[in-house]
Amino acid sequence: MSSVSPALRYWDARAASILREFAELLAIPNVAADPDALERVAAWIREALTKRGIEAEVISLRGAPPVVVGRMEGQTQGPTIGIYAHYDGQPVAPERWASPPFSPTLRTGRLEERGDEIGFPADGDPVDPEWRIYARGSSDDRAPIAALLAALDAIPERSGNIVFLFEGEEEVGSPHLGDYLGHLKGRLAADIWLICDGPVHQSGRAQVALGVRGFAEIEIEVFGPPHDLHSGHYGETGLNPGVALAELIVSMRDADGRLLLEGLEGPEPSEAARIAADAVPDPENLGFAVNPHGSYAGRLLRPLLNVRGIASADVGATSRNVIPASATVSIDLRLVAGQDPVAMIEFVRDHVAAQGYHLVDEAPTAAERMDHRRIARVVGVAGYPGVRTSPDDPMVQRIVEAVDSVADESPILLPSFGGSVPLHHFVEHLDCPLVILPIANHDNNQHSADENIRVGNLRYGVEVFAALLGGI
Amino acid sequence: MSSVSPALRYWDARAASILREFAELLAIPNVAADPDALERVAAWIREALTKRGIEAEVISLRGAPPVVVGRMEGQTQGPTIGIYAHYDGQPVAPERWASPPFSPTLRTGRLEERGDEIGFPADGDPVDPEWRIYARGSSDDRAPIAALLAALDAIPERSGNIVFLFEGEEEVGSPHLGDYLGHLKGRLAADIWLICDGPVHQSGRAQVALGVRGFAEIEIEVFGPPHDLHSGHYGETGLNPGVALAELIVSMRDADGRLLLEGLEGPEPSEAARIAADAVPDPENLGFAVNPHGSYAGRLLRPLLNVRGIASADVGATSRNVIPASATVSIDLRLVAGQDPVAMIEFVRDHVAAQGYHLVDEAPTAAERMDHRRIARVVGVAGYPGVRTSPDDPMVQRIVEAVDSVADESPILLPSFGGSVPLHHFVEHLDCPLVILPIANHDNNQHSADENIRVGNLRYGVEVFAALLGGI
Repeated sequence: MSSVSPALRYWDARAASILREFAELLAIPNVAADPDALERVAAWIREALTKRGIEAEVISLRGAPPVVVGRMEGQTQGPTIGIYAHYDGQPVAPERWASPPFSPTLRTGRLEERGDEIGFPADGDPVDPEWRIYARGSSDDRAPIAALLAALDAIPERSGNIVFLFEGEEEVGSPHLGDYLGHLKGRLAADIWLICDGPVHQSGRAQVALGVRGFAEIEIEVFGPPHDLHSGHYGETGLNPGVALAELIVSMRDADGRLLLEGLEGPEPSEAARIAADAVPDPENLGFAVNPHGSYAGRLLRPLLNVRGIASADVGATSRNVIPASATVSIDLRLVAGQDPVAMIEFVRDHVAAQGYHLVDEAPTAAERMDHRRIARVVGVAGYPGVRTSPDDPMVQRIVEAVDSVADESPILLPSFGGSVPLHHFVEHLDCPLVILPIANHDNNQHSADENIRVGNLRYGVEVFAALLGGI
Repeated sequence: MSSVSPALRYWDARAASILREFAELLAIPNVAADPDALERVAAWIREALTKRGIEAEVISLRGAPPVVVGRMEGQTQGPTIGIYAHYDGQPVAPERWASPPFSPTLRTGRLEERGDEIGFPADGDPVDPEWRIYARGSSDDRAPIAALLAALDAIPERSGNIVFLFEGEEEVGSPHLGDYLGHLKGRLAADIWLICDGPVHQSGRAQVALGVRGFAEIEIEVFGPPHDLHSGHYGETGLNPGVALAELIVSMRDADGRLLLEGLEGPEPSEAARIAADAVPDPENLGFAVNPHGSYAGRLLRPLLNVRGIASADVGATSRNVIPASATVSIDLRLVAGQDPVAMIEFVRDHVAAQGYHLVDEAPTAAERMDHRRIARVVGVAGYPGVRTSPDDPMVQRIVEAVDSVADESPILLPSFGGSVPLHHFVEHLDCPLVILPIANHDNNQHSADENIRVGNLRYGVEVFAALLGGI
């Protein structure tokens, strides 16, 4: 940590007012169910940028919450950085919250560790980095917005070139993000985009992630007899769809658990990505024995075929002595950059057919049931492709250096997030690399009741953005 | 069919009154929910036997519906036959019935084929074998009782030695049958017991079955992470219990579907049983492609491990992108004679352990979760053993000859029923062979609404019992 940075000096002097202004933003509801409030959040952000001298505009496409776009022209001829955050939050169930989700509440620590509620500080009062602000969106994802505004105040000499984009429907899957980016591509051109969302590493270390995985989902239903059949009289006379489905699931992997589906294994990760992965510490204290093969970050460079659910007749108290009429597995696929979700679904379909299945789109006809012992329906929903940026990209290296200059420890360079977000829109419309730059604490109750931000993480955000505003 | 038998002559003369008396019995409700009515059914049966000169008694153990026991001493020194039927029926949902379940209704044919309701015939009216009587218990299992009573009337010279047992709680699993048999073993001694229950063959051919399979049930729960985990972030970091469960299910069989579990395969069937099985026609028109390996009856000579249900998280609209916290398979085991249900459950448990699982009785502790990647809970409920009588048994041969003497075609000798009924009590307490001798039509809606008996099958019952009452 550079303890003499202008950002930190500013924080030390003005932290109380930074928190109070953040609380003003957090008091405006930001859920999809209240579109008028989302408009007010967008207007508040535009106003906050404008009064700091940033050219900013609220832009609306029909039927979608608005985006706020802004531009800051620094004095250098250096690269342009895009900064993205989303101002909408997950739905709230207020009865589950210790304090109302849109009444920002300051506590001396985590609720679970008996953090006491205190009033927001007055100017000049000391501010403890272990304090937490509880409110919906305090971490996910209004914290980067507050940090950025404070950084703009902290750095009068803004020599960087920055474009800003604040979205209002990330939590419902960003259905209009592609449209907005297509519409605004001229104004949003940049050399790299920073997706400011998510938490830092579990250990508290700063983190930069170099992509996300894509997504597709698949259900495979194996058909047994036309209706549940008495297992005593007919056991093994017809196909047991549960056993057949188990065989199908097993057929997808080798003994080491590696995917066997032709074409699904994906491109080999680059040497640089593998080196980055090797440097990432494995998560600790997960509460279970972890996979002895490979590393956590190494797995994020591979596609994933996850069995997220199985159902066939009943278990437990309602189980009956039947050959079930069907068995279904629900699968989510996490795809690496370069894999096409539609093609991936076809690979799975082809694999099922190659195991001897007659594939149907509807329930099989009586004739199909007589003609084919193995019948399955494969239904896929193509999501979107993944995104990956090379750690060797010079823009990435500049961003990492900026983060490193303010972080307590060297940042973790995660070669990809494991989850899926439709960031491919940035790559497709804006044709530039992107990285994910989170600032929130890991234990922030994101998406749950009692969402919070640790004040020290907000301070980290102010420092990071100040470093970027100064030009990289 | 011997068209000149005394039984048939009696039927031709008195069929109308046989049907009317049967209707009187069927009008008394016979469901477990109405224990008083069960008492009235038992009293009715005792009275019907007594007035035909059969020594009969209603006997009650505390907390159980009564049994009716009877004895007929013939004039020969020949063997004693035991005849068992149950007078209770499955629960009824009257709103699903075309006519009230305890208002016996005569129709000119199957409801589904527009059988018209007609009044019960007067003495001397012709009686069509294709008519059907609709009522709960008309087939399962009061038809043998009605047929037996008519046979007693038809054969004045009753030279056979018969003991009778009519039970009142078969449809709830015969929880007191063992107690009754133990209590009454002196009075129920016989050379063979005939379990008069179930339907004849699908084709309409007479059928004698030489046993039943035993029963046990098992649930195996494989534990994943302590709670559902985000599949994007943690996919393949912990064990996916659905995939592990699929491997476990597959590990139980070889590529031909034969059980691999050490000790579970059961004793080889006898040569005689195999020959009997080979002579049994496979069921037809099941509506699906049947197992190309082996024959229907051949499978009944083997134990069955049936996957009757699987559950892990959710599929369909409620599926979520998680590594599920657990996956469960529910299994019913059908055991052949000679297999001990408790030992069979242990074989399954040992098999799971041999696949590398740490077995727990409760949810695993935090320490167990850290120490063991594969953790499972195996919970078994031992049912009861199977029963099998040799087709070579001389008593069996005499019974089959008696059936053959009245049947249209030679009877099918099913080496075992596929289903499970606790008939082992007869073997254990009475130490004699048993066979199952059904008389009802196959399409009798047994256990459903609109249960019925085809009048021609009732007539077949009268002829069979008459042949037995005459001595074998």
